[in-house]
Amino acid sequence: MKNISKETILQMDKVEKLNLINSCTGFKSANLIATKSIEGNTNVAIFSSVTHLGNSPSLIGFIVRPTTSPINTYKNIMETGYFTINHITLDMIADAHHTSANYESGISEFDKTNLEEEYKEGINIPFVKGSPVQLYCKFVNEYNIKENGSIHIIASIENIFFEEALKHKDGWLRLDKGNVVTLNGTDGYFLPKLINRFLYAELDTPSKSFREE
Amino acid sequence: MKNISKETILQMDKVEKLNLINSCTGFKSANLIATKSIEGNTNVAIFSSVTHLGNSPSLIGFIVRPTTSPINTYKNIMETGYFTINHITLDMIADAHHTSANYESGISEFDKTNLEEEYKEGINIPFVKGSPVQLYCKFVNEYNIKENGSIHIIASIENIFFEEALKHKDGWLRLDKGNVVTLNGTDGYFLPKLINRFLYAELDTPSKSFREE
Repeated sequence: MKNISKETILQMDKVEKLNLINSCTGFKSANLIATKSIEGNTNVAIFSSVTHLGNSPSLIGFIVRPTTSPINTYKNIMETGYFTINHITLDMIADAHHTSANYESGISEFDKTNLEEEYKEGINIPFVKGSPVQLYCKFVNEYNIKENGSIHIIASIENIFFEEALKHKDGWLRLDKGNVVTLNGTDGYFLPKLINRFLYAELDTPSKSFREE
Repeated sequence: MKNISKETILQMDKVEKLNLINSCTGFKSANLIATKSIEGNTNVAIFSSVTHLGNSPSLIGFIVRPTTSPINTYKNIMETGYFTINHITLDMIADAHHTSANYESGISEFDKTNLEEEYKEGINIPFVKGSPVQLYCKFVNEYNIKENGSIHIIASIENIFFEEALKHKDGWLRLDKGNVVTLNGTDGYFLPKLINRFLYAELDTPSKSFREE
Protein backbone atom coordinates (compact mmCIF):
# COMPACT_ATOMS: atom_id res chain seq x y z
CA MET A 1 0.00 0.00 0.00
CA LYS A 2 1.02 3.56 -0.63
CA ASN A 3 1.96 5.49 2.53
CA ILE A 4 1.71 9.28 2.48
CA SER A 5 2.99 11.06 5.59
CA LYS A 6 1.87 14.31 7.15
CA GLU A 7 5.07 15.97 5.94
CA THR A 8 4.42 14.90 2.33
CA ILE A 9 0.79 16.06 2.55
CA LEU A 10 1.92 19.51 3.71
CA GLN A 11 4.08 19.86 0.61
CA MET A 12 1.43 18.63 -1.84
CA ASP A 13 -0.08 20.71 -4.61
CA LYS A 14 -3.22 22.49 -3.30
CA VAL A 15 -5.73 20.65 -5.51
CA GLU A 16 -4.16 17.23 -4.93
CA LYS A 17 -4.19 17.81 -1.16
CA LEU A 18 -7.82 18.97 -1.23
CA ASN A 19 -8.91 15.90 -3.22
CA LEU A 20 -6.92 13.43 -1.12
CA ILE A 21 -7.92 14.74 2.30
CA ASN A 22 -11.57 15.25 1.35
CA SER A 23 -11.86 11.68 0.05
CA CYS A 24 -9.87 9.81 2.71
CA THR A 25 -12.52 9.77 5.47
CA GLY A 26 -15.11 7.72 3.53
CA PHE A 27 -18.47 8.41 1.94
CA LYS A 28 -20.24 11.52 3.20
CA SER A 29 -23.79 12.76 3.57
CA ALA A 30 -24.92 14.99 0.68
CA ASN A 31 -27.26 17.72 1.87
CA LEU A 32 -28.51 21.10 0.76
CA ILE A 33 -28.81 23.54 3.64
CA ALA A 34 -31.34 26.28 2.91
CA THR A 35 -31.60 29.52 4.87
CA LYS A 36 -33.14 32.99 4.70
CA SER A 37 -31.61 36.27 5.79
CA ILE A 38 -33.46 38.68 8.06
CA GLU A 39 -34.13 40.81 4.94
CA GLY A 40 -35.72 37.82 3.22
CA ASN A 41 -32.93 36.74 0.84
CA THR A 42 -32.80 32.97 0.45
CA ASN A 43 -29.67 30.86 0.17
CA VAL A 44 -28.96 27.21 -0.51
CA ALA A 45 -25.57 25.49 -0.26
CA ILE A 46 -24.22 21.96 -0.40
CA PHE A 47 -22.76 20.41 2.76
CA SER A 48 -21.18 17.01 3.38
CA SER A 49 -20.55 17.23 7.11
CA VAL A 50 -24.02 16.82 8.63
CA THR A 51 -23.66 14.22 11.39
CA HIS A 52 -26.03 12.56 13.84
CA LEU A 53 -25.22 13.58 17.44
CA GLY A 54 -27.95 11.93 19.50
CA ASN A 55 -31.59 10.86 19.72
CA SER A 56 -32.77 12.30 23.03
CA PRO A 57 -32.91 15.17 22.30
CA SER A 58 -32.59 14.79 18.51
CA LEU A 59 -29.43 16.70 17.67
CA ILE A 60 -27.31 17.07 14.55
CA GLY A 61 -24.05 18.86 13.90
CA PHE A 62 -22.22 20.24 10.87
CA ILE A 63 -19.08 22.23 10.09
CA VAL A 64 -18.85 25.73 8.64
CA ARG A 65 -15.81 27.85 7.81
CA PRO A 66 -17.18 31.38 8.15
CA THR A 67 -14.18 33.05 6.56
CA THR A 68 -14.30 31.02 3.35
CA SER A 69 -17.19 28.83 2.25
CA PRO A 70 -20.80 29.18 2.63
CA ILE A 71 -20.57 32.46 4.47
CA ASN A 72 -24.26 33.26 3.92
CA THR A 73 -25.45 30.00 5.44
CA TYR A 74 -23.75 30.85 8.72
CA LYS A 75 -24.83 34.51 8.66
CA ASN A 76 -28.47 33.61 7.97
CA ILE A 77 -28.59 30.96 10.70
CA MET A 78 -27.20 33.48 13.17
CA GLU A 79 -29.88 35.99 12.10
CA THR A 80 -32.97 33.77 12.17
CA GLY A 81 -31.93 30.79 14.30
CA TYR A 82 -33.35 28.29 11.80
CA PHE A 83 -32.38 26.36 8.65
CA THR A 84 -33.44 23.30 6.66
CA ILE A 85 -31.47 20.20 5.66
CA ASN A 86 -32.57 18.60 2.38
CA HIS A 87 -31.29 15.30 1.00
CA ILE A 88 -29.87 15.46 -2.52
CA THR A 89 -31.35 13.06 -5.07
CA LEU A 90 -29.91 11.68 -8.29
CA ASP A 91 -31.69 14.22 -10.49
CA MET A 92 -30.45 17.17 -8.42
CA ILE A 93 -26.70 16.51 -8.43
CA ALA A 94 -25.65 19.01 -11.13
CA ASP A 95 -27.65 21.80 -9.48
CA ALA A 96 -26.57 20.79 -5.99
CA HIS A 97 -22.94 20.91 -7.07
CA HIS A 98 -23.44 24.34 -8.63
CA THR A 99 -24.46 25.78 -5.23
CA SER A 100 -20.76 25.55 -4.30
CA ALA A 101 -19.96 28.37 -6.78
CA ASN A 102 -18.88 31.48 -4.95
CA TYR A 103 -21.91 33.78 -5.45
CA GLU A 104 -21.84 37.05 -3.58
CA SER A 105 -24.17 37.84 -0.72
CA GLY A 106 -27.70 38.73 -1.82
CA ILE A 107 -27.68 36.38 -4.83
CA SER A 108 -29.78 33.28 -4.20
CA GLU A 109 -28.58 29.94 -5.56
CA PHE A 110 -32.29 29.15 -6.01
CA ASP A 111 -32.23 31.76 -8.83
CA LYS A 112 -29.06 30.33 -10.36
CA THR A 113 -30.16 26.68 -10.52
CA ASN A 114 -33.24 24.57 -11.17
CA LEU A 115 -33.58 24.00 -7.42
CA GLU A 116 -36.93 25.34 -6.22
CA GLU A 117 -37.92 26.77 -2.87
CA GLU A 118 -40.74 24.97 -1.08
CA TYR A 119 -42.57 26.47 1.88
CA LYS A 120 -44.46 24.55 4.55
CA GLU A 121 -47.22 25.81 6.78
CA GLY A 122 -45.95 27.87 9.69
CA ILE A 123 -42.30 27.78 8.57
CA ASN A 124 -40.66 30.85 7.09
CA ILE A 125 -37.43 29.15 5.92
CA PRO A 126 -37.36 27.44 2.49
CA PHE A 127 -36.99 23.71 1.89
CA VAL A 128 -35.73 22.27 -1.39
CA LYS A 129 -38.66 20.98 -3.44
CA GLY A 130 -38.45 17.32 -4.39
CA SER A 131 -36.06 16.33 -1.63
CA PRO A 132 -37.46 13.10 -0.12
CA VAL A 133 -36.14 13.83 3.41
CA GLN A 134 -36.22 17.38 4.77
CA LEU A 135 -35.34 18.48 8.29
CA TYR A 136 -36.43 21.72 9.90
CA CYS A 137 -33.66 22.60 12.35
CA LYS A 138 -33.13 25.12 15.13
CA PHE A 139 -29.71 26.48 16.04
CA VAL A 140 -28.71 25.40 19.56
CA ASN A 141 -25.03 26.16 20.00
CA GLU A 142 -21.71 26.59 18.22
CA TYR A 143 -18.27 25.33 19.17
CA ASN A 144 -15.25 27.11 17.74
CA ILE A 145 -12.66 24.59 16.66
CA LYS A 146 -9.57 26.59 17.44
CA GLU A 147 -7.27 24.16 15.60
CA ASN A 148 -8.39 25.49 12.20
CA GLY A 149 -10.98 28.21 12.77
CA SER A 150 -13.93 26.09 11.71
CA ILE A 151 -17.20 26.06 13.65
CA HIS A 152 -19.20 23.04 14.76
CA ILE A 153 -22.86 24.05 14.63
CA ILE A 154 -25.21 22.10 16.91
CA ALA A 155 -28.91 22.09 16.05
CA SER A 156 -32.09 20.36 17.16
CA ILE A 157 -34.45 18.63 14.74
CA GLU A 158 -37.81 20.40 15.04
CA ASN A 159 -39.63 18.52 12.26
CA ILE A 160 -38.79 15.63 9.94
CA PHE A 161 -40.60 15.60 6.60
CA PHE A 162 -40.21 12.49 4.45
CA GLU A 163 -41.85 10.54 1.66
CA GLU A 164 -43.81 7.80 3.36
CA ALA A 165 -42.54 5.13 0.95
CA LEU A 166 -39.08 5.45 2.53
CA LYS A 167 -40.16 4.55 6.07
CA HIS A 168 -39.88 1.03 7.36
CA LYS A 169 -42.29 0.05 10.13
CA ASP A 170 -39.44 0.17 12.67
CA GLY A 171 -38.73 3.84 11.88
CA TRP A 172 -35.79 3.37 9.51
CA LEU A 173 -35.77 5.66 6.46
CA ARG A 174 -34.45 3.58 3.57
CA LEU A 175 -32.69 6.28 1.57
CA ASP A 176 -32.22 4.38 -1.71
CA LYS A 177 -35.99 4.36 -2.13
CA GLY A 178 -35.69 8.13 -2.56
CA ASN A 179 -32.61 7.99 -4.85
CA VAL A 180 -30.57 9.81 -2.20
CA VAL A 181 -26.89 10.21 -3.17
CA THR A 182 -23.64 10.23 -1.20
CA LEU A 183 -20.42 12.19 -1.78
CA ASN A 184 -16.87 10.87 -2.25
CA GLY A 185 -14.59 13.88 -1.86
CA THR A 186 -15.92 17.29 -2.88
CA ASP A 187 -17.17 16.39 -6.36
CA GLY A 188 -17.88 12.66 -6.76
CA TYR A 189 -21.59 11.78 -6.57
CA PHE A 190 -22.52 8.16 -5.90
CA LEU A 191 -25.81 6.25 -5.66
CA PRO A 192 -25.78 3.59 -2.92
CA LYS A 193 -27.45 0.18 -3.25
CA LEU A 194 -28.60 -1.82 -0.21
CA ILE A 195 -26.41 -4.86 0.51
CA ASN A 196 -27.65 -5.97 3.92
CA ARG A 197 -29.29 -4.81 7.10
CA PHE A 198 -28.29 -6.46 10.35
CA LEU A 199 -30.03 -7.00 13.67
CA TYR A 200 -28.70 -5.46 16.88
CA ALA A 201 -25.28 -7.04 17.59
CA GLU A 202 -25.33 -9.69 20.35
CA LEU A 203 -22.28 -10.94 22.28
CA ASP A 204 -20.60 -14.05 20.81
CA THR A 205 -23.18 -14.35 18.01
CA PRO A 206 -22.34 -13.63 14.37
CA SER A 207 -24.25 -10.73 12.79
CA LYS A 208 -27.74 -11.81 11.70
CA SER A 209 -29.49 -10.25 8.73
CA PHE A 210 -32.69 -8.41 9.26
CA ARG A 211 -35.57 -10.31 7.69
CA GLU A 212 -38.81 -8.78 6.56
CA GLU A 213 -41.82 -10.41 8.17
CA MET B 1 -45.12 14.09 2.79
CA LYS B 2 -45.25 12.81 6.32
CA ASN B 3 -44.40 15.44 8.96
CA ILE B 4 -43.15 14.27 12.35
CA SER B 5 -42.65 16.97 14.95
CA LYS B 6 -40.16 17.19 17.80
CA GLU B 7 -42.98 16.51 20.29
CA THR B 8 -44.01 13.31 18.45
CA ILE B 9 -40.38 12.18 18.25
CA LEU B 10 -40.01 12.59 22.03
CA GLN B 11 -42.94 10.24 22.59
CA MET B 12 -41.81 7.60 20.09
CA ASP B 13 -40.88 4.05 20.99
CA LYS B 14 -37.11 3.87 21.72
CA VAL B 15 -36.18 1.64 18.74
CA GLU B 16 -38.34 3.57 16.27
CA LYS B 17 -36.79 6.85 17.44
CA LEU B 18 -33.27 5.44 17.17
CA ASN B 19 -33.88 4.18 13.63
CA LEU B 20 -35.59 7.36 12.44
CA ILE B 21 -33.08 9.84 13.87
CA ASN B 22 -30.05 7.79 12.86
CA SER B 23 -31.26 7.52 9.27
CA CYS B 24 -32.60 11.05 8.70
CA THR B 25 -29.26 12.84 8.20
CA GLY B 26 -28.24 10.91 5.06
CA PHE B 27 -25.62 8.32 4.20
CA LYS B 28 -22.73 8.10 6.64
CA SER B 29 -19.08 7.10 6.57
CA ALA B 30 -18.47 3.51 7.70
CA ASN B 31 -15.20 3.16 9.58
CA LEU B 32 -13.53 0.85 12.03
CA ILE B 33 -11.54 2.73 14.65
CA ALA B 34 -8.78 0.58 16.13
CA THR B 35 -6.93 1.40 19.36
CA LYS B 36 -4.64 -0.16 21.95
CA SER B 37 -4.68 0.36 25.71
CA ILE B 38 -1.54 1.24 27.63
CA GLU B 39 -1.47 -2.42 28.83
CA GLY B 40 -1.52 -3.60 25.20
CA ASN B 41 -5.17 -4.68 24.83
CA THR B 42 -6.48 -3.96 21.35
CA ASN B 43 -9.96 -2.75 20.49
CA VAL B 44 -11.86 -2.15 17.27
CA ALA B 45 -15.28 -0.50 16.96
CA ILE B 46 -17.52 0.75 14.18
CA PHE B 47 -18.12 4.50 13.80
CA SER B 48 -20.27 6.46 11.37
CA SER B 49 -19.42 10.01 12.43
CA VAL B 50 -15.90 10.55 11.07
CA THR B 51 -15.95 13.89 9.28
CA HIS B 52 -13.45 15.95 7.33
CA LEU B 53 -12.58 19.19 9.17
CA GLY B 54 -9.88 20.77 7.03
CA ASN B 55 -6.87 20.26 4.76
CA SER B 56 -4.22 22.55 6.23
CA PRO B 57 -3.55 21.04 8.68
CA SER B 58 -5.29 17.77 7.81
CA LEU B 59 -7.87 17.35 10.56
CA ILE B 60 -10.78 14.99 11.12
CA GLY B 61 -13.41 14.79 13.83
CA PHE B 62 -15.74 12.14 15.22
CA ILE B 63 -18.25 11.75 18.04
CA VAL B 64 -17.98 9.51 21.11
CA ARG B 65 -20.39 9.02 23.98
CA PRO B 66 -18.06 7.95 26.81
CA THR B 67 -20.85 6.85 29.13
CA THR B 68 -22.45 4.45 26.65
CA SER B 69 -20.88 3.26 23.43
CA PRO B 70 -17.43 2.49 22.52
CA ILE B 71 -16.05 3.32 25.92
CA ASN B 72 -12.74 1.54 25.27
CA THR B 73 -12.06 3.50 22.11
CA TYR B 74 -12.15 6.75 24.06
CA LYS B 75 -10.18 5.38 27.02
CA ASN B 76 -7.44 3.97 24.77
CA ILE B 77 -7.10 7.19 22.76
CA MET B 78 -6.75 9.14 25.99
CA GLU B 79 -4.03 6.70 27.14
CA THR B 80 -1.90 6.51 24.01
CA GLY B 81 -2.90 9.59 22.00
CA TYR B 82 -3.23 7.61 18.77
CA PHE B 83 -5.76 5.55 16.81
CA THR B 84 -6.39 4.26 13.28
CA ILE B 85 -9.40 4.76 10.98
CA ASN B 86 -10.04 1.91 8.56
CA HIS B 87 -12.61 1.93 5.75
CA ILE B 88 -15.11 -0.95 5.82
CA THR B 89 -15.36 -3.03 2.65
CA LEU B 90 -18.20 -5.20 1.36
CA ASP B 91 -16.70 -8.45 2.67
CA MET B 92 -16.21 -7.01 6.18
CA ILE B 93 -19.74 -5.79 6.91
CA ALA B 94 -20.94 -8.67 9.12
CA ASP B 95 -17.79 -8.51 11.26
CA ALA B 96 -17.76 -4.71 11.31
CA HIS B 97 -21.36 -4.71 12.54
CA HIS B 98 -20.49 -7.24 15.24
CA THR B 99 -17.97 -4.82 16.78
CA SER B 100 -20.99 -2.87 18.05
CA ALA B 101 -21.80 -5.71 20.50
CA ASN B 102 -21.22 -4.61 24.05
CA TYR B 103 -18.07 -6.54 24.98
CA GLU B 104 -16.53 -5.72 28.33
CA SER B 105 -13.21 -3.96 28.72
CA GLY B 106 -10.21 -6.21 28.08
CA ILE B 107 -11.97 -8.32 25.42
CA SER B 108 -10.75 -7.47 21.91
CA GLU B 109 -13.24 -7.44 19.05
CA PHE B 110 -10.32 -8.69 16.93
CA ASP B 111 -10.65 -11.97 18.86
CA LYS B 112 -14.43 -12.09 18.43
CA THR B 113 -14.55 -11.51 14.66
CA ASN B 114 -12.62 -12.40 11.50
CA LEU B 115 -11.14 -8.90 11.49
CA GLU B 116 -7.36 -9.10 11.72
CA GLU B 117 -4.86 -6.72 13.24
CA GLU B 118 -2.23 -5.36 10.90
CA TYR B 119 0.90 -3.57 12.11
CA LYS B 120 2.99 -1.13 10.13
CA GLU B 121 6.61 -0.20 10.64
CA GLY B 122 7.11 2.23 13.50
CA ILE B 123 3.43 2.27 14.55
CA ASN B 124 2.31 0.51 17.71
CA ILE B 125 -1.47 0.81 17.09
CA PRO B 126 -3.23 -1.83 14.97
CA PHE B 127 -4.83 -1.22 11.59
CA VAL B 128 -7.56 -3.47 10.15
CA LYS B 129 -6.06 -5.82 7.58
CA GLY B 130 -7.62 -5.61 4.13
CA SER B 131 -9.02 -2.13 4.55
CA PRO B 132 -8.14 -0.23 1.34
CA VAL B 133 -7.84 3.18 3.09
CA GLN B 134 -6.27 3.40 6.53
CA LEU B 135 -5.49 6.58 8.46
CA TYR B 136 -3.02 6.84 11.32
CA CYS B 137 -4.36 9.63 13.53
CA LYS B 138 -3.11 11.61 16.51
CA PHE B 139 -5.45 13.04 19.13
CA VAL B 140 -5.37 16.84 19.10
CA ASN B 141 -8.29 18.07 21.21
CA GLU B 142 -11.76 17.24 22.49
CA TYR B 143 -14.83 19.44 22.72
CA ASN B 144 -17.52 18.48 25.21
CA ILE B 145 -20.94 18.93 23.64
CA LYS B 146 -22.84 19.95 26.71
CA GLU B 147 -26.23 19.59 25.00
CA ASN B 148 -26.08 15.78 25.24
CA GLY B 149 -22.81 14.81 26.91
CA SER B 150 -21.17 13.61 23.72
CA ILE B 151 -17.57 14.48 22.86
CA HIS B 152 -16.23 15.78 19.56
CA ILE B 153 -12.74 14.35 19.15
CA ILE B 154 -10.38 16.32 16.89
CA ALA B 155 -7.39 14.50 15.41
CA SER B 156 -4.67 15.10 12.86
CA ILE B 157 -3.91 12.71 10.02
CA GLU B 158 -0.32 11.54 10.49
CA ASN B 159 -0.23 9.00 7.63
CA ILE B 160 -2.64 7.92 4.89
CA PHE B 161 -2.23 4.35 3.66
CA PHE B 162 -4.22 3.36 0.58
CA GLU B 163 -4.32 0.90 -2.28
CA GLU B 164 -2.73 2.67 -5.22
CA ALA B 165 -5.51 1.56 -7.62
CA LEU B 166 -7.92 3.91 -5.81
CA LYS B 167 -5.93 7.09 -6.41
CA HIS B 168 -6.71 9.34 -9.33
CA LYS B 169 -3.84 11.47 -10.62
CA ASP B 170 -5.44 14.57 -9.05
CA GLY B 171 -5.31 13.03 -5.56
CA TRP B 172 -8.92 11.81 -5.33
CA LEU B 173 -9.37 8.37 -3.76
CA ARG B 174 -12.19 6.69 -5.69
CA LEU B 175 -13.70 4.57 -2.92
CA ASP B 176 -15.85 2.23 -5.04
CA LYS B 177 -12.63 0.80 -6.50
CA GLY B 178 -12.00 -0.57 -2.99
CA ASN B 179 -15.61 -1.77 -2.42
CA VAL B 180 -15.96 0.72 0.44
CA VAL B 181 -19.47 0.77 1.96
CA THR B 182 -21.65 3.48 3.48
CA LEU B 183 -24.16 3.31 6.35
CA ASN B 184 -27.86 4.24 6.32
CA GLY B 185 -28.90 4.39 9.98
CA THR B 186 -27.11 2.12 12.46
CA ASP B 187 -27.52 -1.16 10.59
CA GLY B 188 -28.07 -0.69 6.84
CA TYR B 189 -24.96 -1.31 4.73
CA PHE B 190 -24.92 0.06 1.19
CA LEU B 191 -22.44 -0.11 -1.70
CA PRO B 192 -22.23 3.17 -3.67
CA LYS B 193 -21.84 3.35 -7.45
CA LEU B 194 -20.28 6.37 -9.19
CA ILE B 195 -22.82 8.50 -11.07
CA ASN B 196 -20.80 11.59 -11.94
CA ARG B 197 -17.87 13.73 -10.94
CA PHE B 198 -18.06 17.45 -11.54
CA LEU B 199 -15.47 20.16 -12.09
CA TYR B 200 -15.07 23.04 -9.64
CA ALA B 201 -18.29 25.11 -9.73
CA GLU B 202 -17.99 28.36 -11.72
CA LEU B 203 -20.36 31.36 -11.45
CA ASP B 204 -23.26 31.34 -13.94
CA THR B 205 -22.05 28.14 -15.62
CA PRO B 206 -23.92 24.82 -15.29
CA SER B 207 -21.97 22.02 -13.59
CA LYS B 208 -19.56 20.34 -16.00
CA SER B 209 -18.65 16.70 -15.70
CA PHE B 210 -15.07 15.76 -15.07
CA ARG B 211 -13.59 14.04 -18.13
CA GLU B 212 -10.67 11.67 -18.08
CA GLU B 213 -7.88 12.78 -20.40
